[in-house]
Amino acid sequence: MKAFNDDDFLLQTETARRLYHEHAAKMPIIDYHCHLIPEYVANDHRFDNLSKIWLEGDHYKWRAMRTNGVDERFCTGKDTTDWEKFEKWAETVPYTMRNPLYHWTHLELKTAFGVTKLLNPSTAREIYDHCTAMLRTPEYSARGLMKHYNVEVVCTTDDPVDSLEHHLKVARDNFGVRMLPTWRPDKAMAVEVPADFRAYMEKLSEVSGVSISCFADVIAALKVRHDFFASVGCRLSDHGIEEFYAEDYTQAEVDAIFNKVYGGTPLTREEILKFKTAMMVEFAVMDWEKGWTQQFHYGAIRNNNGRMFAQLGPDTGFDSIGDFTVAKSMSKFLNMLDRQDKLTKTIIYNLNPRDNELIATMIGNFQDGRIAGKLQFGSGWWFLDQKDGMEKQMNALSVLGLLSRFVGMLTDSRSFLSYPRHEYFRRTLCNLIGNDVENGLLPASELDFIGRMVENISYNNAKNYFNF
Amino acid sequence: MKAFNDDDFLLQTETARRLYHEHAAKMPIIDYHCHLIPEYVANDHRFDNLSKIWLEGDHYKWRAMRTNGVDERFCTGKDTTDWEKFEKWAETVPYTMRNPLYHWTHLELKTAFGVTKLLNPSTAREIYDHCTAMLRTPEYSARGLMKHYNVEVVCTTDDPVDSLEHHLKVARDNFGVRMLPTWRPDKAMAVEVPADFRAYMEKLSEVSGVSISCFADVIAALKVRHDFFASVGCRLSDHGIEEFYAEDYTQAEVDAIFNKVYGGTPLTREEILKFKTAMMVEFAVMDWEKGWTQQFHYGAIRNNNGRMFAQLGPDTGFDSIGDFTVAKSMSKFLNMLDRQDKLTKTIIYNLNPRDNELIATMIGNFQDGRIAGKLQFGSGWWFLDQKDGMEKQMNALSVLGLLSRFVGMLTDSRSFLSYPRHEYFRRTLCNLIGNDVENGLLPASELDFIGRMVENISYNNAKNYFNF
Amino acid sequence: MKAFNDDDFLLQTETARRLYHEHAAKMPIIDYHCHLIPEYVANDHRFDNLSKIWLEGDHYKWRAMRTNGVDERFCTGKDTTDWEKFEKWAETVPYTMRNPLYHWTHLELKTAFGVTKLLNPSTAREIYDHCTAMLRTPEYSARGLMKHYNVEVVCTTDDPVDSLEHHLKVARDNFGVRMLPTWRPDKAMAVEVPADFRAYMEKLSEVSGVSISCFADVIAALKVRHDFFASVGCRLSDHGIEEFYAEDYTQAEVDAIFNKVYGGTPLTREEILKFKTAMMVEFAVMDWEKGWTQQFHYGAIRNNNGRMFAQLGPDTGFDSIGDFTVAKSMSKFLNMLDRQDKLTKTIIYNLNPRDNELIATMIGNFQDGRIAGKLQFGSGWWFLDQKDGMEKQMNALSVLGLLSRFVGMLTDSRSFLSYPRHEYFRRTLCNLIGNDVENGLLPASELDFIGRMVENISYNNAKNYFNF
Repeated sequence: MKAFNDDDFLLQTETARRLYHEHAAKMPIIDYHCHLIPEYVANDHRFDNLSKIWLEGDHYKWRAMRTNGVDERFCTGKDTTDWEKFEKWAETVPYTMRNPLYHWTHLELKTAFGVTKLLNPSTAREIYDHCTAMLRTPEYSARGLMKHYNVEVVCTTDDPVDSLEHHLKVARDNFGVRMLPTWRPDKAMAVEVPADFRAYMEKLSEVSGVSISCFADVIAALKVRHDFFASVGCRLSDHGIEEFYAEDYTQAEVDAIFNKVYGGTPLTREEILKFKTAMMVEFAVMDWEKGWTQQFHYGAIRNNNGRMFAQLGPDTGFDSIGDFTVAKSMSKFLNMLDRQDKLTKTIIYNLNPRDNELIATMIGNFQDGRIAGKLQFGSGWWFLDQKDGMEKQMNALSVLGLLSRFVGMLTDSRSFLSYPRHEYFRRTLCNLIGNDVENGLLPASELDFIGRMVENISYNNAKNYFNF
Repeated sequence: MKAFNDDDFLLQTETARRLYHEHAAKMPIIDYHCHLIPEYVANDHRFDNLSKIWLEGDHYKWRAMRTNGVDERFCTGKDTTDWEKFEKWAETVPYTMRNPLYHWTHLELKTAFGVTKLLNPSTAREIYDHCTAMLRTPEYSARGLMKHYNVEVVCTTDDPVDSLEHHLKVARDNFGVRMLPTWRPDKAMAVEVPADFRAYMEKLSEVSGVSISCFADVIAALKVRHDFFASVGCRLSDHGIEEFYAEDYTQAEVDAIFNKVYGGTPLTREEILKFKTAMMVEFAVMDWEKGWTQQFHYGAIRNNNGRMFAQLGPDTGFDSIGDFTVAKSMSKFLNMLDRQDKLTKTIIYNLNPRDNELIATMIGNFQDGRIAGKLQFGSGWWFLDQKDGMEKQMNALSVLGLLSRFVGMLTDSRSFLSYPRHEYFRRTLCNLIGNDVENGLLPASELDFIGRMVENISYNNAKNYFNF
Repeated sequence: MKAFNDDDFLLQTETARRLYHEHAAKMPIIDYHCHLIPEYVANDHRFDNLSKIWLEGDHYKWRAMRTNGVDERFCTGKDTTDWEKFEKWAETVPYTMRNPLYHWTHLELKTAFGVTKLLNPSTAREIYDHCTAMLRTPEYSARGLMKHYNVEVVCTTDDPVDSLEHHLKVARDNFGVRMLPTWRPDKAMAVEVPADFRAYMEKLSEVSGVSISCFADVIAALKVRHDFFASVGCRLSDHGIEEFYAEDYTQAEVDAIFNKVYGGTPLTREEILKFKTAMMVEFAVMDWEKGWTQQFHYGAIRNNNGRMFAQLGPDTGFDSIGDFTVAKSMSKFLNMLDRQDKLTKTIIYNLNPRDNELIATMIGNFQDGRIAGKLQFGSGWWFLDQKDGMEKQMNALSVLGLLSRFVGMLTDSRSFLSYPRHEYFRRTLCNLIGNDVENGLLPASELDFIGRMVENISYNNAKNYFNF
């Protein structure tokens, strides 16, 4: 009987334990995709209590609480106290057994606060008070936590019109962890609502200093911002898309479409697709020119619950996994770039695991021998960011590509307490490989090479791939 | 080497054995979705021989026999004897190794008749005679078998025009097992063939006493029947649909569509979709008004084999798993109800396991904190109703939702010998959880809580959820 | 700790080892689907060195090398030597850990050349020289390798216009391994480019001696060739299709479509689908008349990389897994044949594992009790031809059909060194079953039956099914 959440958590074999403790554990963290609030790092934010750092904005926990029959007041309500919310979360925790939340929760309590008791109604008060007290010490500030977890680089997610003032401050402070921006231009191609698009364009014009009256101006303005992001250390872009866009278009068409929507007229579905394709190609070429890595997160259906969207807005726990048909458009889009030899390093993240094998083979079509692992199958994302999802992603990548060239884990998180997900990922990785070695599927004689492979996937591959 | 089909069948760990024997095994059975013939319970049917109770109407076994090269005469033929059919089934059984039929067969023989020999040509006669003799004793009547298996409630599947006379008789007899009807109004929205629809409407008018000449009359008539079903103890509805219907429609459109099809004119595809959407919404609102649970079974492609359909009709083993695109329509349909705050308790069953993660996240969009587990991801259904299918469903539900709130197993069966599927499910559940505990993925210190969780999934959750 | 790649490779339990060593290992190989170059067998080809037999044309290895950052010159380049290419492959091998290439590589080295060292840069030269020396001995000719691996029958893949001269020579030589042709008429229905189609028709006319001026002539000419293939021992057809074609068509329509495309006019999408459906039906009926088995390989997206396609042409490592919607068209096509009672033995191979359950149930719709396992779910194909893919295919087939009736493994390979894939498959099969026996999921008392089942899946089922 293995103990729960001890030093050998998730490590079923002796080889797995060696790989983790001797190779994985010591590597620093590169969290190349997250949603931290930059201001919190710039100001070295302090958290009032455990609810503030743990429950605020955490739609994973809210979903679990709602499923467990907890009233919305204790998730997002304004009329309940932090303690009341925590109490409801503590009640819910035992009901999350077999859900990753059960593991995250106890791994975070242990690695951040040294708490090894299980969270439930009988321990809630003690744990809340203990952690809250620690959070009020300087070591538990935003920056303190990042250093505590041996974080080397984080890449936030930022809009092209963002001033990046907090990134600049953090760079000046040079506190030991680098915080770099990521170029996330979703709004620049969100032409569904003409007025919103117009407003965004005006903002873009303002921050770029480029007056916008045609499509070429938009690109010129975006390039100004792209250059600015580069000057602040940006190395990645990110795109949240339902599906891949790969409509054929002419420059004349795109010019006309821009004029139409900029003038306030709603576009047809076909026009929207052409416009988005054109923008995606423009973005991709900008990234290629700078040697950045582009990331595509596709396949979510967002804001499914209209009633709650009206109440709470987006990113509050009402998104889910879609079932889009993507292979041909993904292939066509990548080929649009590759045929002009302007396909930059690319990471594709799917949300429906039924596409794992599709993605793992799709990337093989565009590996060009210039950069090891140039196209990447991104780590288990969002709903798939847990042991089962990670294992399926790594197994598909292994049998259909090269696991050894994988750039590994990211948190995709808003929380300063999410770094143990890297530990979780590494333990899962070491466990998979350890099982293979002990089952004779990999040679035990090669443990040195395998150990380096674990180190690479944990850290070195990302460092080299992104040029950090 | 574990023994086959002994007391510890499927239970690989000591913890699994404890969970099963101390917690799961003792719980009564709530079979909230089945296809028993109500008349058999009302009349306390007796079965002439093992073929009658085991092979008649069992399209699972027929498919296996056909695949094994057995002539149709021995599946559905009128010119072969019960014994001849059984002989062919016994020949087939060894060839079903690794198929759930191999497990069901021996589990049913053991738990119903105490037979522990393996069924094959050399044991066929002895087993047939032994079981047939037992079937002719009073203990092996329909009701006897239900009591033997500790069944507390069964919910049959019934058409709105059904008289429910057998349910009423069973209720009057009060023999120790409750048999409740389920509202299955598929025919009331089957507008593909106008004449069939008209005939059904006339039947509906007759049994409801509501004269039907417009859409509002249909709804009124159905409400009369819905009320009647409620009065007989109905708590669930069920809908067998290929895909989710979620077309926008106006009341005027639906009125016109009804008039058209009722008048004998075939509908366009778009009209059919609008009509079905409207009916599904009406049904959903009726269920919400009464606090019932609605079930959606989607994704089967039926009657694939035209030649055999002409010979044998539906439900004879010629259906299979489809690959429909469903996420957006499912989301839209559920939102149509939720936005008017009339989304009742809902269970969604998929038939293609590639949708497991989709469903497990979709339900999270509409959990509203009022009822724990209000939206349910239904247990492995039909082809997926076996160890592999159950494990995949429970694993997806676990990592993307709350397994602890799962209402668990149903047989979906026409047979009085299918109750061991609950045992099979519970063993599979305990085995999954047992493995987790012994691998340190769940804390061994929480075995009391975990034991209760097993009891809840086996029985209490269903009892509370359905208000039995 | 199990040793890597020893006698008990992949065999985790004692039962698995018994099943493999006592039952599977001794069975000859029937490789009923491969892409050997017939001329090599006819001429008993000798290979200059290890690169020639191992790297030439092996797009699996090229993909891995490109992913590992190896320049195209060392994959398909003309300006690099065989040794230089090998050196790059040897560098890549350690990076393929967990990919099937790592297993294939060492299994082939061991079983063909007795090499048990691991291939990497430090062993590359020694292994290259050792194997090259052996390849220059007579035992390592094309025929020598086939005999070395106990091959009994191979079925190549051949175009209807092929002279089959090499098959005829091999038959005359009677060297101990039968090489039979397979009817692969993809080009006869490739109407996308009228000029190419016209050229093919002229070739067909020439080799068949049938002058072609209408659709009926095409069928007549193809029948001549079909008869000829039969006379050379052909027992199977094969069709590489993106999706299943099942458009309704009339003979008049097909006649007109043929005239149009034959006359040089491009067809509409609808016309193409009708024409392909008609051709597929014609081919299927021909196969049914002769009692052949038809194979359908569907679901690949080919030539995704336009730049590399222009450089290297097809089959060079730029194909991947598609996500087609297939259930209804597959059902309709099979039903088109079955309703006229002309559905011959059929094997369906999917490329996206998310369709495993769909296929495993689809075949059940058309099992007619005349031939055991008449419809087959084909073994893990191409990207899925590895442990993980095989296990998923066999598990789906097991729980939804009859594994016992499975015709088993094929290499689908161009290489004379690929026969160990049969060993790999058999080890995987025995391991799955061995685990089941030791876990009590199958009865240990039935090891004799299970041993025969393993022998059947390894060899006897294919021999009987194809009438070899």
